[in-house]
Parts: sequence; structure tokens; C-alpha cells
Amino acid sequence: MSVVTIPARRGKAARVRAGQHIRVVNTPGTQVVDAWAFNANDLTEWMAMEASRAWFMKLRATVGDTFLTNQRRPILTLVEDTSGGAHDTLMAACDLPRYRLLGVEGHHDNCRDNLHAGLAALGISVPATPSPLNLFMNIPWTADGILAWAEPVSPPGTYTVFRAEMDLVVAFSACPQDILPINGRTGRTTEAHFTIE
Amino acid sequence: MSVVTIPARRGKAARVRAGQHIRVVNTPGTQVVDAWAFNANDLTEWMAMEASRAWFMKLRATVGDTFLTNQRRPILTLVEDTSGGAHDTLMAACDLPRYRLLGVEGHHDNCRDNLHAGLAALGISVPATPSPLNLFMNIPWTADGILAWAEPVSPPGTYTVFRAEMDLVVAFSACPQDILPINGRTGRTTEAHFTIE
Repeated sequence: MSVVTIPARRGKAARVRAGQHIRVVNTPGTQVVDAWAFNANDLTEWMAMEASRAWFMKLRATVGDTFLTNQRRPILTLVEDTSGGAHDTLMAACDLPRYRLLGVEGHHDNCRDNLHAGLAALGISVPATPSPLNLFMNIPWTADGILAWAEPVSPPGTYTVFRAEMDLVVAFSACPQDILPINGRTGRTTEAHFTIE
Repeated sequence: MSVVTIPARRGKAARVRAGQHIRVVNTPGTQVVDAWAFNANDLTEWMAMEASRAWFMKLRATVGDTFLTNQRRPILTLVEDTSGGAHDTLMAACDLPRYRLLGVEGHHDNCRDNLHAGLAALGISVPATPSPLNLFMNIPWTADGILAWAEPVSPPGTYTVFRAEMDLVVAFSACPQDILPINGRTGRTTEAHFTIE
């Protein structure tokens, strides 16, 4: 068991065997980590937020909830969470067209590229960018269904632990969003860490 | 302008030019219609609920809101809606594995197959099943983020109108869900209709 660094504004992927635990640590408490998971034996089967919400029947998972794939099979179960639970299932991973809409010209690091670069480092490519599980990302809703990009609420040193329900490839991106306040109002983006246990 | 029938429990797709309007009619008021849209010139670009929510910042679109693709480009704008607005963006299209989880053995009609069959009738195939826009499907949420499969609330004869923001292929499925109450407690599933105007 060794600690793997997700470098600031970059992605990192790893192979995980069924039954292993994945601990994702957010040392400053303010760093959003986009997460994806793929069936190691069929990369067209992936963790799907739309299938997961239809299974646990919540906008946000809580401890004990299992995420499903696009084939409705269990892939990750949330087994521990010290963050307070603000993990978003609603929003797309940031990507270059998104930063264009936010007024950025030229290059901007983004979670979509980070996903594919992290997988490429393992020799893997996938045919789409699934909607991610946005760990530590605080997207509140109102009774009328209005959403907001809110500041993080996770305490420093916060972590989540997932159990792998199949042999899988997990991918993370330390979100480089520095325009909206989801990584804090300072726009500071940092590294994060995970361990396979 | 002719009325196209989406047969009960089946799918239907059509080509639409930028600027045309698509009217989707729910004659009984109780029939959920899953909807997808694809860029006619690049079928890997599709209407994405996760990008759309991040743009209009709501769980449900209201009149004037524009849905975005997975490339963050406008694809459909909701321009008229007599339904009361209960259109779900959260739930995956029903599929055979979903009906297995609901206890069904053997075949069950499902929206995923309907999407691909509807496209196939136009000679089109797509590499994934995007999360659909579930028209007339009533998925309420609580302050705590708990979701429910609720009965339909659209009045009979209800309709929605969308403006196409690019040349696109639209696909609809008259949802065959007869176990959960989203098409009403009777489990009756019916045809629906659309026109390209």
C-alpha cells in the first residue's frame, strides 16, 4: 500500500482488484477530485451517475451506497466518508470548451483531458467521457431545483473510501477549475492523493 | 409538417435542420418520452444532461433554457411547455439489466433498445447510450436530495416544443416502464407523437 499523488491540475489512473479499497485524500479540504471507474475487462462498461442515482435514489451518495455501471452492475461502494458528503453527481467534467464559455483563451488544464491522459499512461483508451463523480465538490440545490457552484465545505485532511465491486480501472483528476469557486475563492488548485488498500 | 407516431413501447428517430421546431405531444398526459439528440454531422457529439445542467444551473430545464452537447454547444432550446415542467434530467434510460433488477425475467421492452432501433431505422449507430432527457417524467427531490419515482403530473394533451440549434438527429422512446409508477399506477403505456415544424 503506497500513496499515489494526483499532481495538481493533472490526472492519474490505477488498476484495482475486486474487494480492494480506494482511499482518496483531500489534504487541504478544498481540492475537488473528479473520479471515474471502468470495468477492467470491458472498457465500454463504466460507472454511470445516471444509473447510480436511479439505484440509490439520491442526488448524492452516502456511506453504504453503491454506484452502478451503464450495465447496472455494482462497481464502487462508498464505505467511509469524513467529508460531510458534498460529492456532486450532476456536473460534467470540465473541458476546454467549458473554459471557452468561461472566457478563457488558449490552453487551460481540464478534467476531461486529465482523465484520458491518466488512462493513456496505463495504455488504456475509452470511447467517451462519462459523467464523473465529483468528490468534495459542493453543488447545492434549492427546493425549486436551482443549482450553484459553491465553495468547498470538506474539512482539511478529509477522505473517502470506496470498495471495488469488480476488477476495475479507476481514474482521478485534481480539478484545475480556478475561475468558479468550487476549489475555493482563492482559485488555488492543489495535488490530492489516493491509496489502494 | 406531418405527425409522426412513436409507437407504444417503441422508439422513433428523425433528422431535423437547425432552426426547425420539434413538438412532442403526450396525448394521455401520462406517457413518459425519453429524448436524445445527436449532431447530424458528428454522431459522437450528443445532448448531454451533465453539460446542460452545468449551463442552465437547474435540475430541470424551463422555457428558454438551452441544452448543450458533450462539446458544450447548443443543440436544443425548450421554447414552449404546457406540461408543468416535470421533465427529468437525472435518470438513465431503462434497459434490460434495469428490468432484471426489478425482477423481470425474459424480454422487456426498454428505452435503450428503442433508442438504438430508432436510429438504426435511419441507418445510424452511435457508440454509447447518452443519459436521456426524460420528458413528462416526474422525479421529485427533497431538501436532503432523496429522489422518488412519482406518478405523472402532466395534463392530457400536454406538449413541449424545442428549437433545433444545429442540424441534428432526434430520437424518442415511448417508455415501456410498467413496474414503477412513472407512466401512472395502472402500468398502461401508450404511443406518443411528434412533429417537425
